[in-house]
Amino acid sequence: MLAVSDAGSVGLVDRQFFTFGSPQEPFRLEGGGVLPEVTQCYETYGTLNASGTNAILIEHGITGSSHAAGKYRLDSPYAGYWELLIGPGKALDTDHYFVIAPNALGGCRGATGPQSINPLTNAPYADSFPTLTIRDMVRAQRPLIDALGVRRLHLVTGGSMGGMQALEWAVTYPELVDACCPVASSARNSAQAIAFNECMRRAIRLDPNWQGGRYYGGEPPRDGLALARMIGTITYLSDPIMQRMFGRKSAREESAAEHDLHIRFDVERYLHEEGEKLIRRFDANTYVVVSRAIDLHDLSRGYTSLEAAYQRIQAVMLLIGISSDILFYPHHIVEMDQALRRLGVDSTYWEMDSDYGHDAFLVEQDKLEQPLRELLARLPAPA
Amino acid sequence: MLAVSDAGSVGLVDRQFFTFGSPQEPFRLEGGGVLPEVTQCYETYGTLNASGTNAILIEHGITGSSHAAGKYRLDSPYAGYWELLIGPGKALDTDHYFVIAPNALGGCRGATGPQSINPLTNAPYADSFPTLTIRDMVRAQRPLIDALGVRRLHLVTGGSMGGMQALEWAVTYPELVDACCPVASSARNSAQAIAFNECMRRAIRLDPNWQGGRYYGGEPPRDGLALARMIGTITYLSDPIMQRMFGRKSAREESAAEHDLHIRFDVERYLHEEGEKLIRRFDANTYVVVSRAIDLHDLSRGYTSLEAAYQRIQAVMLLIGISSDILFYPHHIVEMDQALRRLGVDSTYWEMDSDYGHDAFLVEQDKLEQPLRELLARLPAPA
Repeated sequence: MLAVSDAGSVGLVDRQFFTFGSPQEPFRLEGGGVLPEVTQCYETYGTLNASGTNAILIEHGITGSSHAAGKYRLDSPYAGYWELLIGPGKALDTDHYFVIAPNALGGCRGATGPQSINPLTNAPYADSFPTLTIRDMVRAQRPLIDALGVRRLHLVTGGSMGGMQALEWAVTYPELVDACCPVASSARNSAQAIAFNECMRRAIRLDPNWQGGRYYGGEPPRDGLALARMIGTITYLSDPIMQRMFGRKSAREESAAEHDLHIRFDVERYLHEEGEKLIRRFDANTYVVVSRAIDLHDLSRGYTSLEAAYQRIQAVMLLIGISSDILFYPHHIVEMDQALRRLGVDSTYWEMDSDYGHDAFLVEQDKLEQPLRELLARLPAPA
Repeated sequence: MLAVSDAGSVGLVDRQFFTFGSPQEPFRLEGGGVLPEVTQCYETYGTLNASGTNAILIEHGITGSSHAAGKYRLDSPYAGYWELLIGPGKALDTDHYFVIAPNALGGCRGATGPQSINPLTNAPYADSFPTLTIRDMVRAQRPLIDALGVRRLHLVTGGSMGGMQALEWAVTYPELVDACCPVASSARNSAQAIAFNECMRRAIRLDPNWQGGRYYGGEPPRDGLALARMIGTITYLSDPIMQRMFGRKSAREESAAEHDLHIRFDVERYLHEEGEKLIRRFDANTYVVVSRAIDLHDLSRGYTSLEAAYQRIQAVMLLIGISSDILFYPHHIVEMDQALRRLGVDSTYWEMDSDYGHDAFLVEQDKLEQPLRELLARLPAPA
């Protein structure tokens, strides 16, 4: 499904970095903490027009990175996470748009996060990394956008936590955003999603290597982070797709005997593999900080009501839900759409029909092509 | 909701014990293991008739016990888990029926389980407790039923794992069962439910006190078991009820400030409390063994197909699903009902409309009264 042909790809890409702030002028977080220095790690595809108005900002999910399209090595089998959507001639057409994909603040894929060296102490932040919010992530992207010469964001989009950031952009900087398309996301995190996140954080903290988050230099809490990912993996899928992918199959091909009482179920193997894969590329402190940012996500914060936040929005909104999503249920997104329209915001709801659950925004990203094309076609062309 | 008036209660009850087996004639488990001795812990309410035909067998869920009705002390605030359904004049009317409620084999509430002393070693089974199945639980109840003088089971019922046992009774001993009412249960455990169980087992094993299950005499893996329960708790509820019960409320009444970035969400408090409650009354090895029995549950085992297993059933079947259940989705239960009816089994599906999710079979048990009464009214009276 994610097989990539080189035709239509942005090709070879590289990460770029942008740093701002100083101990004298630190970046101040919503929760009261400060970061003396913020580094943004990002990729860009396409060219910014002279008026700086053709930028599209892509925000990633909880364990994502800046690598939204293209490849780091041409012989690599791996392409960016939205490769089918970003490139010349694709829905997010790099022949027409300047696409920017940053790693979220707090992340561990190049952005300033708990692993980063605090310039005031010359040691990693670790457990001293301050409370972070989705709005902080967005506010910290503003200097990057400005430095790149971007005057308007023609579109901000992303799935899951990326959708939360897209929404925060539309509310926090309404004057900058032409269109906003949050996919499988929400205006504020639900109780059930908070509950899953708390179980994941608890799993990390249960690992004896956790050491209160001060594990850098020693063994990281791999088993705890792997268990967190195992739990997360269930919420990224759905009952029908798990039934189809695994059912009650055995993990070992040779043990086709469905009724082997010493069976290791294939779904168990899959969860453990997903856990093992994540620990090779992700940091536990980041998982704790960023999942907490997701829980704290509430568009209404700082406004008199959620409606007051919605009313700030000037962007054309396309809200996308996934029919089988159990982390961001479609009916919550429908409610957001209805509230936006009641308040006069130009909002549309579109539901992706998929059994893949939350993960569909990645594994069935081809289904996003048409609605994104239609959204962009509706907008006045960047001036 | 579970406030109990003494009128209609079976009143003071006590646990009873029944032991069978010997090193020479052990109980042989489906997986090949043996138990030299099996103790059943059970409660009974009402009186067996002379012909032994008015018995109702009640099976419990994963962390349940034999305490289905009445109280252990009259001044106790706690009554049995199905107190609203069992008693004189109630749906499971102890003026007419002899109700038997055992603790499942492998349990830690009186039945033989990993905590029990293996008579061959004079030490607890711990990690040497053999692989157990739902069918083993049912087969181990047969000698108890016989010893009590029961000739027919007028009804076998229970929720969740209890429903799995009810189904196994109807398939394994079809000639004994008049009616079978599994609530919020399944013919075989789903991939998603296996996935959640594997995360819970992993949580227990992640606790440094786990010690491969050989923790008796030392500190038990409380934190791991608590996390397992936290995960389970999410699956016992639903998105709508969590929204209603917790939303984004703070855990501390005094911190009503919804936008406190140092908030501890009420849903987090609840999960941790549920975890703490379970570790006071439950054993981690039992959780591992019994959750595995649930995963291995597959009515078709030992038969040529699931249909072949269904065709053995002689009982009148009432399958109950819960509209918001995310652990045993109603549509799986509807499929079972349709398959049973295609095969000529007298089966009916009834859906409990509830936002409480899987837990509704306990917290909204009053809604089960009418369908159970109607089922019993349809049956010929016990001879």
